[in-house]
Amino acid sequence: MTTASTHQTEIAVDPNVPLVRITREFDAPPAKVFRAHTDPELVAQWLGPRRHEMRIDHYDCRTGGSYRYIHASDGNEFGFHGSFHEVRPAELIVQTFTFDGQPDGVALEKLIFEDLGDGRTRLTATSLVDSFEDRDAFVASGMEEGVREGYERLDELLAG
Amino acid sequence: MTTASTHQTEIAVDPNVPLVRITREFDAPPAKVFRAHTDPELVAQWLGPRRHEMRIDHYDCRTGGSYRYIHASDGNEFGFHGSFHEVRPAELIVQTFTFDGQPDGVALEKLIFEDLGDGRTRLTATSLVDSFEDRDAFVASGMEEGVREGYERLDELLAG
Repeated sequence: MTTASTHQTEIAVDPNVPLVRITREFDAPPAKVFRAHTDPELVAQWLGPRRHEMRIDHYDCRTGGSYRYIHASDGNEFGFHGSFHEVRPAELIVQTFTFDGQPDGVALEKLIFEDLGDGRTRLTATSLVDSFEDRDAFVASGMEEGVREGYERLDELLAG
Repeated sequence: MTTASTHQTEIAVDPNVPLVRITREFDAPPAKVFRAHTDPELVAQWLGPRRHEMRIDHYDCRTGGSYRYIHASDGNEFGFHGSFHEVRPAELIVQTFTFDGQPDGVALEKLIFEDLGDGRTRLTATSLVDSFEDRDAFVASGMEEGVREGYERLDELLAG
């Protein structure tokens, strides 16, 4: 039995602009990590904490597409939706993100897939909002745990 | 002959976050100003400076839709594209915006239509990017003239 490697997930707040930057390496080439972000059947297997059941309403990951999915846990449902501004294969995804519970909030997210060679990828995901208060509340909300756990699940999927 | 009223267009840079805020009143109710932003045939009549020919590739202004249009002038073509994150009738449009000439740049735009009563509307349009340098370069690029002229053309369309 192989154990998926566990790289560190770095989560940093930018000092100058209301942005969170998440950096994570994966032991898989960019095309494979990218596909795990664009194929809804794969996305459903890793995005979010383990305890949540993931239900995808639609996930049309292409330039000009959109998505909506629901995390369900203990009878509670949490919906998320957004649009895909730009999708460049194995390179870049630019998308918007709103949690239905805060319908007036919106983040602009950039995911950059960087080829480190030797079948490894560095993913840098930034999330930009229009106020430092909202950014800091998002970080304080416990997003860290969900992000780390999601990437551990992604490690397992990529190793499989 | 009636002359369209000319309200002032206020363009302000935010001191704390890399955002530009444009405020403009119109002598028309929110539903009418909103429609001039969502119906591609109307958008083509006012968006941008007069000297540019406007060509719409597609303009699917609904939550989860996308757009692309081209401004042509003196044989030069300037393309713009983005996605519509959220569209709430007569109230709100949240969209992304990229100028093809700077394909790695992207702005998150919010348009808020506020009912001032007596058939008047205040439009507040914010544009958020991830660096102050990019924001200031955008403002210094002469966008002001295009925005003011576009809104004068919109006044004329709304009065017609």
